[in-house]
Amino acid sequence: MDLKEYIADIPDFPEPGVLFRDVTPLLADKDAYKEAIRLLVDFAKEKDVDVIAGPEARGFLFGCPVATELNCGFVPVRKPGKLPRKVVTKSYDLEYGSNEIQMHSDSIQPGQNVLIVDDLLATGGTVQATVSLIEQMGGNVVGIAFLIELEALKGRKLLTGYDVYSVLKY
Amino acid sequence: MDLKEYIADIPDFPEPGVLFRDVTPLLADKDAYKEAIRLLVDFAKEKDVDVIAGPEARGFLFGCPVATELNCGFVPVRKPGKLPRKVVTKSYDLEYGSNEIQMHSDSIQPGQNVLIVDDLLATGGTVQATVSLIEQMGGNVVGIAFLIELEALKGRKLLTGYDVYSVLKY
Repeated sequence: MDLKEYIADIPDFPEPGVLFRDVTPLLADKDAYKEAIRLLVDFAKEKDVDVIAGPEARGFLFGCPVATELNCGFVPVRKPGKLPRKVVTKSYDLEYGSNEIQMHSDSIQPGQNVLIVDDLLATGGTVQATVSLIEQMGGNVVGIAFLIELEALKGRKLLTGYDVYSVLKY
Repeated sequence: MDLKEYIADIPDFPEPGVLFRDVTPLLADKDAYKEAIRLLVDFAKEKDVDVIAGPEARGFLFGCPVATELNCGFVPVRKPGKLPRKVVTKSYDLEYGSNEIQMHSDSIQPGQNVLIVDDLLATGGTVQATVSLIEQMGGNVVGIAFLIELEALKGRKLLTGYDVYSVLKY
């Protein structure tokens, strides 16, 4: 099954010059969605994963089913102001400006094996910040898995030394 | 297993006077998360569901594993500006002001059986708007399932005539 047939290419979204890879046709197709989750689980299942971490909102779409299939917990990585308890925060640079992500400060226990799952590896800023927060809490990042990798943006360079997997490369 | 032990009660979040029910301890515990998804799947499995619809972001946390367990597709219900293709939009009133949600206008096929999954039934505005968009596209809402229902807020009154289930009532 060619999962790329279920990714819609949308020119100039969210801004001119960007080609957006829309995963909603894949999600809507039960066989394509199941196959994508199966491939992510296959990557993860030899890694003795304790918990999955996934950035909001699209990381939840893939990270949560991987968590329940692997019989792991799930830890949401969120935008500022969404988590109600004590948080750890990491800023990262964008082309113009910066973003912040947060995790609950007790969300990863020291020594836990953590798999990060997200929909897309682009420039890698979000995932690099996620790695940083997990390690700050004492977690071991045992793998990083994406549905889609945009190879031209070289996000993988920020993740040297980690086991990185992407289902689909563009 | 008493799943309420995995819900953290947070006073005065996101604003004074609100008691926030934080689901992150449940998500983080593999057995509690698995049990919550099992109960949602049990509600859904006799309903001949074609697709799950879930509002961002916390609806994804529960709706996506239910979709893959049931072998269904998943349709995200999103805040304005997030979906890249043609959308249908519905506004709904809040205590002060209003909100909008969007779905891709081709995300539900006429005659499809749709189960809505969200984390929380409070006043019911988001889910009522979601029902409205699904029916506008010709879908049949065969059930509406929540992890948590805040009974005092009477959101269920907006959903009369639908099969509504909640795992935990407060």
